This record gives sequence, structure tokens and C-alpha cells, in this order.
Amino acid sequence: MHFLIIGGSDAGIAAGLRAHELDPSCEITLVLSDEYPNYSICGLPFFLSGETPDWHSLAHRTEFPGIQLMPNHTAESIDPIGKFVAVRNGNGAQLELRYDKLLIATGARPVQPNIEGFHLPGVFPLHTMEDSFAVHRFLEERQPKSAVIVGAGYIGLEMADALTRRGVHVTVASRTEAVLATVDPGYGKRVEVELEKHGVEVWNQVQASSIRATRDGLAVSGTKEFSRTADLVLVAVGVRPNSELGAAAGVTQGAKGALCVNRKMETTLPDVYAAGDCVETWHRLLNRNTYMPLGTTAHKQGRTAAENAIGVHREFAGSLGTQVVKLFDLIAARTGLREQEAASAGFCPFTAETTVWDHKAYYPGARELHLRITGDRHTGKLLGAQLLGHRNSEVSKRVDIFATALFHGMKMEELNDLDLSYTPPLSSPWDPVQMGAQFWTKAAGNRSSRL
Amino acid sequence: MHFLIIGGSDAGIAAGLRAHELDPSCEITLVLSDEYPNYSICGLPFFLSGETPDWHSLAHRTEFPGIQLMPNHTAESIDPIGKFVAVRNGNGAQLELRYDKLLIATGARPVQPNIEGFHLPGVFPLHTMEDSFAVHRFLEERQPKSAVIVGAGYIGLEMADALTRRGVHVTVASRTEAVLATVDPGYGKRVEVELEKHGVEVWNQVQASSIRATRDGLAVSGTKEFSRTADLVLVAVGVRPNSELGAAAGVTQGAKGALCVNRKMETTLPDVYAAGDCVETWHRLLNRNTYMPLGTTAHKQGRTAAENAIGVHREFAGSLGTQVVKLFDLIAARTGLREQEAASAGFCPFTAETTVWDHKAYYPGARELHLRITGDRHTGKLLGAQLLGHRNSEVSKRVDIFATALFHGMKMEELNDLDLSYTPPLSSPWDPVQMGAQFWTKAAGNRSSRL
Repeated sequence: MHFLIIGGSDAGIAAGLRAHELDPSCEITLVLSDEYPNYSICGLPFFLSGETPDWHSLAHRTEFPGIQLMPNHTAESIDPIGKFVAVRNGNGAQLELRYDKLLIATGARPVQPNIEGFHLPGVFPLHTMEDSFAVHRFLEERQPKSAVIVGAGYIGLEMADALTRRGVHVTVASRTEAVLATVDPGYGKRVEVELEKHGVEVWNQVQASSIRATRDGLAVSGTKEFSRTADLVLVAVGVRPNSELGAAAGVTQGAKGALCVNRKMETTLPDVYAAGDCVETWHRLLNRNTYMPLGTTAHKQGRTAAENAIGVHREFAGSLGTQVVKLFDLIAARTGLREQEAASAGFCPFTAETTVWDHKAYYPGARELHLRITGDRHTGKLLGAQLLGHRNSEVSKRVDIFATALFHGMKMEELNDLDLSYTPPLSSPWDPVQMGAQFWTKAAGNRSSRL
Repeated sequence: MHFLIIGGSDAGIAAGLRAHELDPSCEITLVLSDEYPNYSICGLPFFLSGETPDWHSLAHRTEFPGIQLMPNHTAESIDPIGKFVAVRNGNGAQLELRYDKLLIATGARPVQPNIEGFHLPGVFPLHTMEDSFAVHRFLEERQPKSAVIVGAGYIGLEMADALTRRGVHVTVASRTEAVLATVDPGYGKRVEVELEKHGVEVWNQVQASSIRATRDGLAVSGTKEFSRTADLVLVAVGVRPNSELGAAAGVTQGAKGALCVNRKMETTLPDVYAAGDCVETWHRLLNRNTYMPLGTTAHKQGRTAAENAIGVHREFAGSLGTQVVKLFDLIAARTGLREQEAASAGFCPFTAETTVWDHKAYYPGARELHLRITGDRHTGKLLGAQLLGHRNSEVSKRVDIFATALFHGMKMEELNDLDLSYTPPLSSPWDPVQMGAQFWTKAAGNRSSRL
């Protein structure tokens, strides 16, 4: 059996490793367009901040047992009838690779914003290793003193942190009401406080429209009279799926042009699977596909695709959209649905916000932990949670307790039944997760929902 | 309805608060034998270390809405026919308190070890606020330079940490093969390394037999030629249930003499509930009662007892024995069953141990996280997990992810389906929890258990 994989990032590599693990006799070929198999794209801001000085260490792994890697090979077309893929190598030569089972794991690419001057020198996207090398070279050679970052999502804000660490003055131009639109605006505002505390300047509801090269640097202009001149401009306004290859072969496309797959990660073409940032993702709470590119999901989907390709039936369990970001000393995490997402999906959501200590206040170092919890008034079920707190407050694994509860469809009241660990330096007899659930229940006037 | 509660610690107070919350018209009286309602007994080591300078701050709360507190009142007998409790106040006067529903929440007390000289001045147990004041006075007035701690469980080891912080040289005499017998001996040995790194001397498999007052201090002797002279001796060799009051009234006793209760926290007497360290605890995995006194459990049981007393049917969901302790910079946590406990209970356990990074190694500050995971070979189900790691490695909330998975009876393979949060400074695309599960599956040769 020849399992051909197009794409050398999380989904592709996870699939190859899993296929080899389950069936060591499987012949596995993996085509990647660059020479950086399974590099941690999420780690690029830390390379650029200087916290991770050697980019080589960003490789998730350097050994790929059972996988024949073909770096610098670009897949150009798929013939789903003849079952082969046309590939061009670095020298421009084309070759054809036959497959029994094919995985399309072509990932995503940055959205090209409609900004005049986007292609000027000193203006960079940040998605690939090559992007990152270009920014790194610029930082080293030009020693910029100032930067404008267009976009206030994970990458934009992590880069605000990274450049500030290098002594660069950063201005963030955010399109939304508050930065980090993956959490509610009130929490986005708290994130802004952390950014501003470290010297980052934040502009909200700004649509950047043009970049001009001036004697003083790159002049960025936008709505709301936004105007800043800086030595460096980063543009990080989201990603879109690299779905063209699959689409040209006849794979149906869905949300945002991503490839349609079922929960076995099968596309609409026989023996062709797809996984990772180029596909739609099954949402466990919404019970439908969405476009939600995340590295964790890509790993799971790649693994699931390989299992099915090998002949072991397995369904992708679905995403809850669990995410976390560290910005300076602040951690912002979320899982599940927010109020409006839940309402749109037909739930009857109620959201309660509370602030508790991360551990017993009598033990030194207690810090405030902020929780916004969304549940369904009718069923009493947990729908989602957003948490903000200090980097030492176990915020991310607390959101994971919520994620595990969500996975099982727990009711808010049932969270009190969980036997969670407690010692005064780390928690309270009712963990903050449970205090949040209790607060929600009272606030919702829903205290007897399960009783 | 008059709800009478005997005991002012976690179970009693949790019950009173919950009863008032559900039924504000309920008349609630709470009798406690000292004057410290709902103090955090788990916090005593931090008061004695000086980390929590003011003992008043150990109060979990200082307001008790809807509860009439009767401090310094000792319950002496229960008449389950007449439905009243005989109580003696601080002046020696006796009074009778009628009840409609009664909760016995009399807690536990330290095991009195069979050690000659246990009652000498300078030898202390540590369980109540009064014990703690006595030790504190001794520390302040005598400024001891050395201490022997008999017992190497949570309290003993936390006190080794606490006294070391005060500049006292500590020797721990442990009865078991390694300290902290709640984790496997290999992990106990790792805990010893942390203790010894901070100057604590550890003796294992020592049964202390006598303490003598000598010119040089208190001479502690035991098996294996153990002999140490110190200025202070602490004895912390476990607790036993304060079940005499309930037993005298006719409540059936079970494991270790604890009061028998069903999952509604009803005793064998009508309208008499019991909860907390004086009762047997339903174990969710063993499907039977055990004696496992923990503050988290006491809160849950008190809450459950109150709900049933109020007339709302609710069952205690059961304990998983989730526990965590911080010793210097090390966190040791566990949940569920260990290999031998599982085997005794009829499971077919297999345990795998692995060490992974707590977050991506390329981001500064990555530390080793040790996981020992136990699962059932036949069913592929998770049975338990033990974790050791640095205080900033989110160890305790990672054990809680295992606890939440255990609560739902998840198979090891299903842990890979959990949508857990990831950012390089805090985790990996597969969280250490999932890496541990994957390692177990491979080690058990059980990779297709769920597939």
C-alpha cells in the first residue's frame, strides 16, 4: 500500500507517523514544498523575539521513521482517476507519484490584505519559515526601532510581545472593538492593559488602507485617522486554506473555501483524504463543519486520516476551539462557544463573569483569575469558558478541565462532582473551575437545573 | 425545618451554606467544639513556615449567612429517637438541641502513635488550630535549631519544607520504603531528592519507638538503629475518624471505624446524615466505600448531605482520590488507582512511566514532567495517573485532566480526542497528558484497544 502525503507540517507528519506506527509495511511518501518538515510555526514569534535563538530547535522532530520525505517538491495536480500526483522538484523537473491512498495536507496561507503598499520592502507577512527568516534578517541588519503590526490576533499580538522584548516600539492596529477577537471584548480590553503596561500602543477599529515609503520610514494609514510611521510593518490578518490543489482535482469546498471532509477525513474523491489547515473542521458542539485552523486539530486530523487510510475505522471526535496564548505575563484561553456563537447555533446561552483567586489567598503569590463561563439556560449544560490570568496560574490546563467537561457534555452543576486536586499554594477546595460553575449557576437562577 | 450540624470544618460549613442557599427558610444551627469555624487545616504548615504570617487569614470565610454558629460547644450524645443532641458549652453547662435533620461532621484526629515519650514537652501532633498555636509558640520562644518529623505523608513533608524555610534542620523518619506513600516508591524517591536538595535528611523504613528528654534535647529512637536528637519533634502519622459520637448513637461503622453512609450521605439512623473525615467515602472506580479523608471530598459530601436533608435527591458522585502536594519547588499529584490498588480491585492493570517536557523545549524554562499512568489491559481504560514536576509546570491541573477523564471512564486512546490547549510556552500540540496516554498505549502493546 502506498500512502502519499502532500504537506510536511503538523497534519501530514502526524499522518505519516501514525500510518507507520499502525502498519510498518505501509510505504509512505511525503512531499513538501520547502525543506522544513514539521517545524513549529507557532514558535516563529519566539525565534524572532530572541527567546528561541536557534531556529533549528523549532523542529517538532528531526526523525521521521518509515516516511520517505521529498523536500522542495511542489504538488501541482492530482489525477484521482489514474491515482497519481504530478510533482515538480526544485530543479523544475516534473515527476508523477502514484498512490493507493492520498492525503492532502497543504495547510493555509496568510490572507493578502487589501492594503496599498503591502509589497514594499520592510513589510512582511509571517507564516512560513522563509517569512520568518526574512523578518529575522531585517531585524538583525536594520535594527528597527519601531514597528506597526496590522492585525491583533494570536500572531499579531505574539509579535507585539516579541518585538517589544527586542526593544522595538510597537503599535498594533486592530480591526475589532478590542484586540484578540477570539475572546469577548471585555477580556480583549484586559489583554490591552497588559500590552500597554509593556509599552505597546493599541489602536482599535482601524482598517489599515495604505503603506507608503517615506524618508522617515513606512507610513501606515487607515480608518479613524490612524497614521503611524515605523521602520517595520508586519501584517497578520488571518489565514485562508490552501485548497486550490484539492479543489482543482474535484474535491468539494466548504466554509472559506476549505476542503470538505467527513469525520473520517475523507474528501469527496475516492481514496483521497485531507486534514489540517486546508480542510473544514468538525465542531463537536455545533455538530457541523467550520473553518478553524489550529495545530492541535491538524495533528488529530492527520492521525485520524492515517488510521482510516490504513483501514482502521476512526472518526475525528471534533474540535471545541480550545486555544491559548501567552502575552507577556498574561495567559488568555478559551474553549467551546461564546454567547453569540451559542445563540446563533440555537442554544439558549447565558454568560457569567467572575474573578477568583488562583489559589488560597493566604498563601503568597495569589493572583486574580478571570472566568467568563457560558452555559445553556434550558439544559444547564456547559457551552464554553474564557479564562484570563497570570502565566503561573495554571490557566491553560484549567481551560482544559473545561474542555474535557465540554467533551463529555457535562452540566454546569456536575462540574462540582469532579474530584480535582487541591493544595493551598495551587488551588482551593473548590477549584476556580468549580467556583466559576457555581457562580454561573447562581447568576443564571438555574441552581436546580440538575437537581 | 431545623437542620443541626455538628462540626465546623469543611463538611459542616459546606452543608450549612448549601442548605441556606437552597432553602433560605431553613433554620440552621452549627455546633463546633472550638472557636475556629472553617479554618483551612491544610494551611497550617504555611502559617508555621512563616509564609502565612497571620493565622486569621487561614479562615476559608468569616461570614456564614443563614447559619447560627455555636462555638466552644461540644456535642456529647445524640438521641435519634427523641431527635435531640446533648451539648456542653465552654462553662460546662449542658443543653439539648432538637433537630429535624442532623449532620454529623466531626472530622478526624491524629493517630496516637505507640511511641514512648509522645507526651513530652516539645513533641507535637499537628491537626487543629490549637496544635498549631502550640507549635508556633514553641518555634517563637525556643527558636529550635533541629527537628525530627515522624511520618512522611503530606503533613510531615509539608512541615519538613516549612521548618527548613525557618532555618531548622529537619530529619524525617518514614515508615515506608520511600516518603509519600500515596505515590509509587520510585516517585517517592524523586521527592526525597527534592527534600535532600534543600537539606532535609530522610530515613526510610524506620518505626520510631521512643522519645527521651536528654540534656541535648529530645532523643528519638527507632528501628534500623535510627537515633537523632533534636529540639523539636513533630508526629504526623495519619488520622482516624472521630466517629465515637455517631457510633454511640447507633450509626454503623465501616472501614477504620468511619461512619457508614450511603451516597446520599445518610447514616443508618433516620434523618441523620454524616460527611467529611468522620465517614467512609464512596470510591468512583472501586465502586465501594473506603476511608480517604480529604478536604475536597468533605466539601462535596457536606454539600450533598445538605441537598438531601433539604429534600433534593442527590448522590455523592464519588472520590477518585485526587491529591496534590507542593514540596519546595516540586509538585507531586495523583488521581485514581495505582497498579496494586487496581489489581486488588480486580482490574488488569498495566503501568507505564515516561518523562516529557512540560512545554516545547525550544521555549525557555522547559522542565521535565514525569508521568506514571495506569490503565486496564483488557478494556483499555484509564485507571490512574501520578505526576511529578516543577511548580510552574501546571502539574496539578494536568492531573485534573486525568481526573476528569477518569470521572467519565475514558479509554486511554480516547484521551487523544480531547481538544486541549496549546501554545509553545505552556504545552505541546499533544499535551503531556496525551503523550503519556500514547506512551502507555504503545508500552501496553494495546494500540488497537479502542480502534
